[in-house]
Amino acid sequence: MAFHYPNGRKYVSKNSEAIQRSIKKSSFSNRGKTLEDDLNDTNEYYVANGIAIVHKKPTPIQIVDVHYPKRSAAVIKEAYFKQASTTDYNGVYKGKHLDFEAKETQNPTSFPLKNFHEHQIRHMESIAQQGGIAFVIIRFSKTDEIYLMESEHLTKFWNRMIEGGRKSITKTEVESCSKQISLGFHPRIDYIKVIDSILGLFPNGSL
Amino acid sequence: MAFHYPNGRKYVSKNSEAIQRSIKKSSFSNRGKTLEDDLNDTNEYYVANGIAIVHKKPTPIQIVDVHYPKRSAAVIKEAYFKQASTTDYNGVYKGKHLDFEAKETQNPTSFPLKNFHEHQIRHMESIAQQGGIAFVIIRFSKTDEIYLMESEHLTKFWNRMIEGGRKSITKTEVESCSKQISLGFHPRIDYIKVIDSILGLFPNGSL
Repeated sequence: MAFHYPNGRKYVSKNSEAIQRSIKKSSFSNRGKTLEDDLNDTNEYYVANGIAIVHKKPTPIQIVDVHYPKRSAAVIKEAYFKQASTTDYNGVYKGKHLDFEAKETQNPTSFPLKNFHEHQIRHMESIAQQGGIAFVIIRFSKTDEIYLMESEHLTKFWNRMIEGGRKSITKTEVESCSKQISLGFHPRIDYIKVIDSILGLFPNGSL
Repeated sequence: MAFHYPNGRKYVSKNSEAIQRSIKKSSFSNRGKTLEDDLNDTNEYYVANGIAIVHKKPTPIQIVDVHYPKRSAAVIKEAYFKQASTTDYNGVYKGKHLDFEAKETQNPTSFPLKNFHEHQIRHMESIAQQGGIAFVIIRFSKTDEIYLMESEHLTKFWNRMIEGGRKSITKTEVESCSKQISLGFHPRIDYIKVIDSILGLFPNGSL
Protein backbone atom coordinates (compact mmCIF):
# COMPACT_ATOMS: atom_id res chain seq x y z
CA MET A 1 0.00 0.00 0.00
CA ALA A 2 1.19 3.53 -0.68
CA PHE A 3 0.91 6.53 1.63
CA HIS A 4 2.72 9.78 2.20
CA TYR A 5 4.57 11.55 4.99
CA PRO A 6 3.26 15.03 5.87
CA ASN A 7 6.13 16.46 3.81
CA GLY A 8 4.52 14.85 0.80
CA ARG A 9 7.27 12.31 0.35
CA LYS A 10 5.91 8.94 -0.62
CA TYR A 11 6.45 6.34 2.10
CA VAL A 12 8.24 3.25 0.80
CA SER A 13 8.96 0.27 2.99
CA LYS A 14 12.57 -0.95 3.27
CA ASN A 15 11.67 -3.91 1.04
CA SER A 16 10.17 -1.94 -1.80
CA GLU A 17 12.82 0.80 -1.59
CA ALA A 18 15.22 -1.08 -3.88
CA ILE A 19 12.50 -1.57 -6.49
CA GLN A 20 11.37 2.04 -6.14
CA ARG A 21 14.94 3.23 -6.68
CA SER A 22 15.45 1.18 -9.82
CA ILE A 23 12.20 2.60 -11.18
CA LYS A 24 13.26 6.12 -10.21
CA LYS A 25 16.73 5.67 -11.73
CA SER A 26 15.21 4.67 -15.04
CA SER A 27 12.91 7.68 -15.02
CA PHE A 28 13.63 10.82 -17.03
CA SER A 29 16.62 12.72 -15.55
CA ASN A 30 16.56 12.79 -11.75
CA ARG A 31 13.08 14.11 -11.29
CA GLY A 32 11.74 10.81 -9.97
CA LYS A 33 14.00 11.03 -6.92
CA THR A 34 13.22 13.37 -4.07
CA LEU A 35 15.71 15.78 -2.54
CA GLU A 36 15.55 13.64 0.60
CA ASP A 37 16.52 10.49 -1.34
CA ASP A 38 19.50 12.29 -2.88
CA LEU A 39 20.64 13.72 0.45
CA ASN A 40 20.33 10.35 2.18
CA ASP A 41 22.48 8.78 -0.56
CA THR A 42 24.96 11.64 -0.24
CA ASN A 43 25.15 11.32 3.54
CA GLU A 44 25.63 7.55 3.29
CA TYR A 45 28.53 8.25 0.93
CA TYR A 46 30.04 10.79 3.35
CA VAL A 47 29.75 8.41 6.31
CA ALA A 48 31.07 5.39 4.37
CA ASN A 49 34.09 7.41 3.22
CA GLY A 50 34.73 9.18 6.54
CA ILE A 51 34.19 12.57 4.88
CA ALA A 52 31.51 13.78 7.30
CA ILE A 53 29.04 12.20 9.71
CA VAL A 54 25.57 13.49 8.88
CA HIS A 55 22.26 11.72 9.47
CA LYS A 56 18.61 12.57 8.96
CA LYS A 57 16.67 12.60 12.22
CA PRO A 58 13.77 10.17 12.55
CA THR A 59 10.32 11.60 11.83
CA PRO A 60 8.88 12.71 15.20
CA ILE A 61 5.85 10.64 16.16
CA GLN A 62 3.36 11.13 18.99
CA ILE A 63 2.60 7.63 20.25
CA VAL A 64 -0.85 7.08 21.73
CA ASP A 65 -1.36 3.32 21.87
CA VAL A 66 1.01 0.35 21.82
CA HIS A 67 0.13 -3.34 21.99
CA TYR A 68 2.41 -6.09 23.30
CA PRO A 69 1.49 -9.31 21.50
CA LYS A 70 2.88 -12.48 23.11
CA ARG A 71 6.14 -13.74 21.61
CA SER A 72 6.46 -10.83 19.16
CA ALA A 73 7.53 -7.21 18.94
CA ALA A 74 5.57 -4.31 20.42
CA VAL A 75 3.13 -2.89 17.85
CA ILE A 76 2.25 0.80 17.77
CA LYS A 77 -1.50 0.82 17.09
CA GLU A 78 -2.15 4.55 17.21
CA ALA A 79 0.30 7.36 16.59
CA TYR A 80 0.40 10.73 14.85
CA PHE A 81 2.99 12.70 12.93
CA LYS A 82 4.35 15.60 14.97
CA GLN A 83 5.78 18.81 13.56
CA ALA A 84 9.58 18.77 13.83
CA SER A 85 10.89 21.32 16.35
CA THR A 86 14.40 21.35 14.88
CA THR A 87 15.96 20.73 11.47
CA ASP A 88 15.92 17.38 9.66
CA TYR A 89 19.64 16.88 9.28
CA ASN A 90 22.65 17.39 11.50
CA GLY A 91 26.11 16.08 12.06
CA VAL A 92 29.78 16.92 12.22
CA TYR A 93 32.40 17.90 9.64
CA LYS A 94 36.00 18.66 10.64
CA GLY A 95 34.81 19.23 14.21
CA LYS A 96 32.15 21.71 13.12
CA HIS A 97 28.50 21.11 13.89
CA LEU A 98 26.30 21.08 10.77
CA ASP A 99 22.56 21.65 11.03
CA PHE A 100 20.29 21.98 8.05
CA GLU A 101 16.86 21.67 6.54
CA ALA A 102 16.21 20.59 2.94
CA LYS A 103 13.23 21.75 0.90
CA GLU A 104 12.20 21.68 -2.74
CA THR A 105 9.68 23.64 -4.75
CA GLN A 106 7.93 23.16 -8.08
CA ASN A 107 7.82 26.93 -8.42
CA PRO A 108 10.44 27.90 -11.03
CA THR A 109 10.73 31.60 -10.11
CA SER A 110 10.55 31.82 -6.30
CA PHE A 111 10.84 29.79 -3.12
CA PRO A 112 7.77 29.89 -0.83
CA LEU A 113 8.66 30.51 2.83
CA LYS A 114 5.68 28.40 3.95
CA ASN A 115 8.11 25.49 3.52
CA PHE A 116 9.59 26.48 6.88
CA HIS A 117 8.25 26.91 10.42
CA GLU A 118 9.02 29.73 12.84
CA HIS A 119 10.71 27.41 15.35
CA GLN A 120 12.94 25.95 12.65
CA ILE A 121 14.14 29.45 11.78
CA ARG A 122 14.78 30.21 15.47
CA HIS A 123 16.52 26.84 15.92
CA MET A 124 18.90 27.60 13.05
CA GLU A 125 19.61 31.03 14.56
CA SER A 126 20.50 29.39 17.88
CA ILE A 127 22.78 26.91 16.14
CA ALA A 128 24.59 29.74 14.35
CA GLN A 129 24.87 31.67 17.64
CA GLN A 130 26.56 28.61 19.17
CA GLY A 131 29.10 28.61 16.34
CA GLY A 132 27.49 25.80 14.37
CA ILE A 133 26.93 25.98 10.61
CA ALA A 134 23.18 26.27 9.99
CA PHE A 135 21.81 26.36 6.47
CA VAL A 136 19.08 25.24 4.11
CA ILE A 137 19.43 23.23 0.94
CA ILE A 138 16.89 24.46 -1.58
CA ARG A 139 15.97 22.64 -4.77
CA PHE A 140 14.08 24.09 -7.68
CA SER A 141 12.67 20.77 -8.89
CA LYS A 142 11.65 21.88 -12.39
CA THR A 143 15.22 22.75 -13.33
CA ASP A 144 16.90 20.51 -10.73
CA GLU A 145 18.97 23.45 -9.46
CA ILE A 146 20.14 23.09 -5.87
CA TYR A 147 21.37 25.92 -3.64
CA LEU A 148 22.87 26.11 -0.15
CA MET A 149 21.79 29.22 1.77
CA GLU A 150 23.20 30.03 5.21
CA SER A 151 20.56 30.59 7.89
CA GLU A 152 21.41 34.28 8.39
CA HIS A 153 20.03 35.00 4.90
CA LEU A 154 16.94 32.83 5.42
CA THR A 155 16.28 34.70 8.69
CA LYS A 156 16.51 37.99 6.78
CA PHE A 157 13.86 36.89 4.27
CA TRP A 158 11.73 35.33 7.04
CA ASN A 159 11.72 38.58 9.02
CA ARG A 160 10.83 40.52 5.86
CA MET A 161 7.73 38.30 5.61
CA ILE A 162 6.91 38.77 9.32
CA GLU A 163 7.09 42.52 8.79
CA GLY A 164 4.48 42.22 6.04
CA GLY A 165 6.78 41.69 3.07
CA ARG A 166 6.59 38.99 0.41
CA LYS A 167 5.98 35.39 1.48
CA SER A 168 8.69 33.96 -0.72
CA ILE A 169 12.31 34.37 -1.78
CA THR A 170 12.70 35.24 -5.46
CA LYS A 171 14.96 32.97 -7.51
CA THR A 172 17.24 35.98 -8.07
CA GLU A 173 17.50 36.52 -4.30
CA VAL A 174 18.27 32.83 -3.77
CA GLU A 175 21.01 33.03 -6.40
CA SER A 176 22.54 36.15 -4.85
CA CYS A 177 22.51 34.86 -1.24
CA SER A 178 23.40 31.21 -1.84
CA LYS A 179 26.01 28.98 -3.40
CA GLN A 180 24.80 26.57 -6.06
CA ILE A 181 25.67 22.94 -5.45
CA SER A 182 26.98 21.24 -8.55
CA LEU A 183 25.22 17.92 -9.10
CA GLY A 184 27.30 14.78 -9.47
CA PHE A 185 26.60 11.10 -9.71
CA HIS A 186 28.23 9.85 -6.52
CA PRO A 187 27.73 11.73 -4.29
CA ARG A 188 24.72 13.26 -5.98
CA ILE A 189 24.59 16.50 -3.93
CA ASP A 190 28.13 17.27 -2.78
CA TYR A 191 27.21 20.05 -0.34
CA ILE A 192 30.39 19.56 1.70
CA LYS A 193 32.30 21.39 -1.05
CA VAL A 194 30.17 24.45 -0.28
CA ILE A 195 30.81 23.99 3.45
CA ASP A 196 34.53 23.98 2.66
CA SER A 197 34.15 27.32 0.93
CA ILE A 198 32.19 28.66 3.93
CA LEU A 199 35.01 27.45 6.20
CA GLY A 200 37.49 29.11 3.84
CA LEU A 201 38.81 25.77 2.62
CA PHE A 202 39.09 25.02 -1.07
CA PRO A 203 39.75 21.34 -1.78
CA ASN A 204 40.27 19.75 -5.18
CA GLY A 205 37.27 20.33 -7.38
CA SER A 206 35.80 23.80 -7.56
CA LEU A 207 32.20 24.69 -6.81
CA MET B 1 -3.11 3.47 29.58
CA ALA B 2 0.55 2.89 30.43
CA PHE B 3 3.18 1.30 28.25
CA HIS B 4 6.93 1.38 27.84
CA TYR B 5 9.47 2.27 25.19
CA PRO B 6 11.97 -0.48 24.33
CA ASN B 7 14.49 1.36 26.53
CA GLY B 8 12.19 0.58 29.42
CA ARG B 9 11.19 4.17 29.92
CA LYS B 10 7.50 4.52 30.73
CA TYR B 11 5.60 6.29 27.96
CA VAL B 12 3.60 9.25 29.22
CA SER B 13 1.37 11.31 26.97
CA LYS B 14 1.95 15.07 26.77
CA ASN B 15 -1.17 15.62 28.85
CA SER B 16 -0.25 13.33 31.71
CA GLU B 17 3.40 14.44 31.71
CA ALA B 18 2.74 17.34 34.07
CA ILE B 19 0.91 15.11 36.54
CA GLN B 20 3.60 12.42 36.24
CA ARG B 21 6.30 14.97 36.99
CA SER B 22 4.57 16.31 40.08
CA ILE B 23 4.21 12.74 41.34
CA LYS B 24 7.87 12.04 40.51
CA LYS B 25 9.05 15.24 42.17
CA SER B 26 7.28 14.27 45.40
CA SER B 27 8.86 10.80 45.30
CA PHE B 28 11.84 9.85 47.46
CA SER B 29 14.99 11.66 46.26
CA ASN B 30 15.26 11.73 42.46
CA ARG B 31 14.78 8.04 41.88
CA GLY B 32 11.32 8.45 40.41
CA LYS B 33 12.77 10.40 37.47
CA THR B 34 14.65 8.69 34.69
CA LEU B 35 18.02 9.80 33.40
CA GLU B 36 16.23 10.77 30.18
CA ASP B 37 13.82 13.05 32.06
CA ASP B 38 16.72 14.77 33.81
CA LEU B 39 18.70 15.20 30.59
CA ASN B 40 15.68 16.58 28.74
CA ASP B 41 15.16 19.11 31.54
CA THR B 42 18.87 19.97 31.45
CA ASN B 43 18.87 20.41 27.67
CA GLU B 44 15.75 22.60 27.83
CA TYR B 45 17.61 24.75 30.36
CA TYR B 46 20.70 24.96 28.11
CA VAL B 47 18.60 25.92 25.06
CA ALA B 48 16.48 28.45 26.98
CA ASN B 49 19.61 30.12 28.35
CA GLY B 50 21.65 29.96 25.13
CA ILE B 51 24.30 27.83 26.86
CA ALA B 52 24.21 24.97 24.33
CA ILE B 53 21.78 23.61 21.74
CA VAL B 54 21.24 19.93 22.44
CA HIS B 55 18.16 17.86 21.61
CA LYS B 56 17.15 14.24 21.95
CA LYS B 57 16.43 12.61 18.61
CA PRO B 58 12.95 11.22 18.06
CA THR B 59 12.55 7.47 18.64
CA PRO B 60 13.02 5.79 15.25
CA ILE B 61 9.82 4.12 14.09
CA GLN B 62 9.22 1.77 11.14
CA ILE B 63 5.85 2.78 9.75
CA VAL B 64 3.81 0.06 8.09
CA ASP B 65 0.26 1.40 7.81
CA VAL B 66 -1.24 4.88 7.88
CA HIS B 67 -4.89 5.86 7.58
CA TYR B 68 -6.17 9.21 6.29
CA PRO B 69 -9.54 9.87 7.95
CA LYS B 70 -11.58 12.65 6.31
CA ARG B 71 -11.21 16.08 7.92
CA SER B 72 -8.62 14.90 10.48
CA ALA B 73 -4.94 14.13 10.85
CA ALA B 74 -3.25 11.07 9.36
CA VAL B 75 -3.27 8.18 11.85
CA ILE B 76 -0.46 5.66 12.01
CA LYS B 77 -2.23 2.33 12.50
CA GLU B 78 0.74 -0.02 12.45
CA ALA B 79 4.35 0.78 13.27
CA TYR B 80 7.28 -0.78 15.11
CA PHE B 81 10.13 0.52 17.21
CA LYS B 82 13.43 0.42 15.32
CA GLN B 83 16.87 0.12 16.91
CA ALA B 84 18.60 3.49 16.81
CA SER B 85 21.59 3.54 14.46
CA THR B 86 23.19 6.55 16.11
CA THR B 87 23.22 8.12 19.57
CA ASP B 88 20.15 9.61 21.27
CA TYR B 89 21.46 13.12 21.83
CA ASN B 90 23.44 15.59 19.78
CA GLY B 91 23.94 19.28 19.37
CA VAL B 92 26.42 22.12 19.42
CA TYR B 93 28.38 23.88 22.16
CA LYS B 94 30.80 26.73 21.37
CA GLY B 95 30.93 25.53 17.77
CA LYS B 96 31.80 21.98 18.79
CA HIS B 97 29.60 19.07 17.82
CA LEU B 98 28.38 17.05 20.81
CA ASP B 99 27.12 13.50 20.38
CA PHE B 100 26.18 11.23 23.24
CA GLU B 101 24.23 8.30 24.57
CA ALA B 102 22.78 8.13 28.09
CA LYS B 103 22.28 4.90 30.00
CA GLU B 104 21.54 3.92 33.57
CA THR B 105 21.98 0.70 35.51
CA GLN B 106 20.56 -0.73 38.71
CA ASN B 107 23.82 -2.62 39.17
CA PRO B 108 25.78 -0.86 41.96
CA THR B 109 29.22 -2.31 41.16
CA SER B 110 29.52 -2.45 37.36
CA PHE B 111 28.02 -1.12 34.15
CA PRO B 112 26.81 -3.82 31.69
CA LEU B 113 27.94 -3.21 28.10
CA LYS B 114 24.74 -4.79 26.76
CA ASN B 115 23.30 -1.29 27.24
CA PHE B 116 25.04 -0.35 23.98
CA HIS B 117 24.97 -1.65 20.41
CA GLU B 118 27.95 -2.22 18.12
CA HIS B 119 26.82 0.44 15.62
CA GLN B 120 26.45 3.03 18.40
CA ILE B 121 30.06 2.40 19.44
CA ARG B 122 31.21 2.73 15.81
CA HIS B 123 29.10 5.86 15.35
CA MET B 124 30.74 7.51 18.37
CA GLU B 125 34.18 6.54 17.00
CA SER B 126 33.32 8.21 13.68
CA ILE B 127 32.12 11.35 15.45
CA ALA B 128 35.36 11.55 17.42
CA GLN B 129 37.37 10.99 14.22
CA GLN B 130 35.55 13.98 12.68
CA GLY B 131 36.60 16.11 15.64
CA GLY B 132 33.27 15.97 17.44
CA ILE B 133 32.96 15.29 21.17
CA ALA B 134 31.44 11.82 21.58
CA PHE B 135 30.68 10.45 25.03
CA VAL B 136 28.29 8.51 27.21
CA ILE B 137 26.52 9.67 30.33
CA ILE B 138 26.27 6.76 32.75
CA ARG B 139 24.06 6.70 35.83
CA PHE B 140 24.30 4.26 38.67
CA SER B 141 20.65 4.55 39.72
CA LYS B 142 20.96 3.01 43.18
CA THR B 143 23.38 5.71 44.32
CA ASP B 144 22.31 8.34 41.77
CA GLU B 145 25.95 8.81 40.70
CA ILE B 146 26.38 10.13 37.15
CA TYR B 147 29.57 9.95 35.09
CA LEU B 148 30.62 11.30 31.71
CA MET B 149 32.94 8.95 29.81
CA GLU B 150 34.50 9.91 26.48
CA SER B 151 33.89 7.42 23.69
CA GLU B 152 37.56 6.42 23.35
CA HIS B 153 37.35 4.76 26.77
CA LEU B 154 34.02 3.08 26.02
CA THR B 155 35.53 1.71 22.78
CA LYS B 156 38.44 0.30 24.80
CA PHE B 157 36.08 -1.60 27.14
CA TRP B 158 33.86 -2.65 24.22
CA ASN B 159 36.84 -4.13 22.34
CA ARG B 160 37.94 -5.95 25.49
CA MET B 161 34.51 -7.64 25.51
CA ILE B 162 34.74 -8.47 21.78
CA GLU B 163 38.10 -10.09 22.45
CA GLY B 164 36.47 -12.34 25.05
CA GLY B 165 36.92 -10.14 28.10
CA ARG B 166 34.31 -9.10 30.68
CA LYS B 167 30.91 -7.93 29.45
CA SER B 168 30.81 -4.92 31.74
CA ILE B 169 32.81 -1.97 33.01
CA THR B 170 33.58 -2.14 36.72
CA LYS B 171 32.54 0.85 38.82
CA THR B 172 36.23 1.43 39.60
CA GLU B 173 37.03 1.52 35.87
CA VAL B 174 34.17 3.94 35.27
CA GLU B 175 35.50 6.18 38.06
CA SER B 176 39.05 6.12 36.67
CA CYS B 177 38.10 6.81 33.03
CA SER B 178 35.26 9.31 33.56
CA LYS B 179 34.46 12.60 35.19
CA GLN B 180 31.62 12.59 37.71
CA ILE B 181 28.87 15.10 37.04
CA SER B 182 27.83 16.96 40.16
CA LEU B 183 24.05 16.97 40.50
CA GLY B 184 22.25 20.25 40.86
CA PHE B 185 18.66 21.36 40.96
CA HIS B 186 18.49 23.50 37.83
CA PRO B 187 20.03 22.23 35.65
CA ARG B 188 19.88 18.80 37.20
CA ILE B 189 22.79 17.23 35.27
CA ASP B 190 25.18 20.03 34.33
CA TYR B 191 27.34 17.98 31.94
CA ILE B 192 28.49 21.09 30.05
CA LYS B 193 30.87 21.81 32.95
CA VAL B 194 32.59 18.51 32.16
CA ILE B 195 32.69 19.40 28.45
CA ASP B 196 34.39 22.67 29.44
CA SER B 197 37.08 20.70 31.25
CA ILE B 198 37.47 18.44 28.18
CA LEU B 199 37.85 21.57 26.04
CA GLY B 200 40.34 22.90 28.57
CA LEU B 201 37.97 25.62 29.74
CA PHE B 202 37.23 26.14 33.41
CA PRO B 203 34.24 28.41 34.04
CA ASN B 204 32.91 29.52 37.42
CA GLY B 205 31.95 26.56 39.53
CA SER B 206 34.31 23.61 39.70
CA LEU B 207 33.40 20.07 38.76
